[in-house]
Amino acid sequence: MKIAIAGAGAMGSRFGLMLKQGGNDVLLIDGWQDHINAIKENGLKANYNGKEITVEIPIVNQNNVPTGEQFDLIILFTKAMQLEKMLQDVKPLIADHTEVLCLLNGIGHEDVIEKFVPMEKIFIGNTMWTAGLEGPGKAKLFGSGSVELQNLGAGQEEAAKKLAETLSASGLNAKYSDNIHYSIYRKACVNGTMNGLCTILDVNMAGLGATKPAHDMVATIVNEFAAVAAKENVNLDIPEVIEHVETCFDPTTIGMHFPSMHQDLIKNNRLTEIDYINGAISRKGKKYGVATPYCDFLTQLVHSKEEILGAK
Amino acid sequence: MKIAIAGAGAMGSRFGLMLKQGGNDVLLIDGWQDHINAIKENGLKANYNGKEITVEIPIVNQNNVPTGEQFDLIILFTKAMQLEKMLQDVKPLIADHTEVLCLLNGIGHEDVIEKFVPMEKIFIGNTMWTAGLEGPGKAKLFGSGSVELQNLGAGQEEAAKKLAETLSASGLNAKYSDNIHYSIYRKACVNGTMNGLCTILDVNMAGLGATKPAHDMVATIVNEFAAVAAKENVNLDIPEVIEHVETCFDPTTIGMHFPSMHQDLIKNNRLTEIDYINGAISRKGKKYGVATPYCDFLTQLVHSKEEILGAK
Repeated sequence: MKIAIAGAGAMGSRFGLMLKQGGNDVLLIDGWQDHINAIKENGLKANYNGKEITVEIPIVNQNNVPTGEQFDLIILFTKAMQLEKMLQDVKPLIADHTEVLCLLNGIGHEDVIEKFVPMEKIFIGNTMWTAGLEGPGKAKLFGSGSVELQNLGAGQEEAAKKLAETLSASGLNAKYSDNIHYSIYRKACVNGTMNGLCTILDVNMAGLGATKPAHDMVATIVNEFAAVAAKENVNLDIPEVIEHVETCFDPTTIGMHFPSMHQDLIKNNRLTEIDYINGAISRKGKKYGVATPYCDFLTQLVHSKEEILGAK
Repeated sequence: MKIAIAGAGAMGSRFGLMLKQGGNDVLLIDGWQDHINAIKENGLKANYNGKEITVEIPIVNQNNVPTGEQFDLIILFTKAMQLEKMLQDVKPLIADHTEVLCLLNGIGHEDVIEKFVPMEKIFIGNTMWTAGLEGPGKAKLFGSGSVELQNLGAGQEEAAKKLAETLSASGLNAKYSDNIHYSIYRKACVNGTMNGLCTILDVNMAGLGATKPAHDMVATIVNEFAAVAAKENVNLDIPEVIEHVETCFDPTTIGMHFPSMHQDLIKNNRLTEIDYINGAISRKGKKYGVATPYCDFLTQLVHSKEEILGAK
């Protein structure tokens, strides 16, 4: 199968590597020239569950995608704020039969994708795989994971199931979901609490969880997500989601980690994805007439902090 | 006049010094033993508008106030969270005729004071004087200021005006206000925005003001203060108060300063007064059925940060 990975950062590299090893014809597409050069010169290197491997995969800059070549599948793995630019850049690769799978963190990306791809070719999902980059061209890929995905357009269940099979054939452990929006909102609740709070308080997840106000803050934010989700006919099991979010506090599992937004903003002074997590809830809340003050305030605080730190 | 200063930190030292120089019989009362020892041994030292001066003023530890001595006036100048303990400690000094003047920052202190002093002897106010401590026994007192005060009990206007005259006779520039709650709420809006936001974002006031979300955050918080104040028949001129608050952003006046809460928590890892500023609005909001989510969230964030930093 001819597959383009649009956004070949840590997670895109994982998917590209596994799909390539699974026998697919993979093209990586990215905007980071050092990363592109490294992969062109030396192949994609990875510490893959402790073993150092190198896989030769073609990669191009998104500003310079091949013309006249069309793909069966494009998997979107950009940062949320880079999605629209990426879709514009990969437009020449989208044929009538091309399926587009969006696995970005956050909420509401379909609004952007629909501008470029017909509904019946859009699939959305989320993944529990993890991945890191140690430097240009060098990934760090540990542990196992899974993918859930669903068709956005009506009547495309079979296509979605086939797509899951394609991914699973390369070990990606994908399955069809008949309620992907529930999974996406549930995961967004994790990002919508841990990311913003740990960033603003400059603390890891266990440290946040050890403070008395943590539970009430988490509960209030999850309730705002749930109130917005309910307007989209997604009815979150609020106590279960809060319990799920709070497993992040456990210092014996992932609690000692800083969420990715903390790494982006506090450690590396990069702009965050807050507009596609809490900020998306604020925008949807306004649209639906649902008050989302904690999401509003957290979004404002993170944006202020971006400006204070001169994030780019 | 026999005056006790209950809480002889920076601002208590200023008032004690000026009232002593004005010919009053002043006793300082505090809980910080190094400060007490320094003043006992060397007098209260101050850089007073650039001039080094020393004033001999008696000082006692609040745990050991004199018995059998009663005062005409007790001025309360503790941190908000130390107010109730101080009132318990100075109880032996309160006679039937003793007037108590509260000049603490924050809102709702009268609820505490009323437990110890009859309404008609309570006066509340606020001050625009500033003061700093350079170390035990050593104050830094620059610039000029003013005091506004009002009687809490009905029919005590004359007593309030006389009290203002007493303070003014020592240069404290005090005047009677017929709407002190308005002034207190207006000042609390400054503390309720600059203190919490600059603390959580670790930035000075000009730095906060330079960020795009600053104005909306300030406006939302001031609106919450105003909604609560309205339930107490205090009707803030919201646009004027927002404009007043935002003068703090000016880097050519006070904008380059960090508010006191930032100094307490971020610089010195001390517990903050948030429960008596935004936290007071949250409690009153609950009581009156007024939603105050920004004050709720900011109070929670500051309390979490206190725990994260091990503040004491």
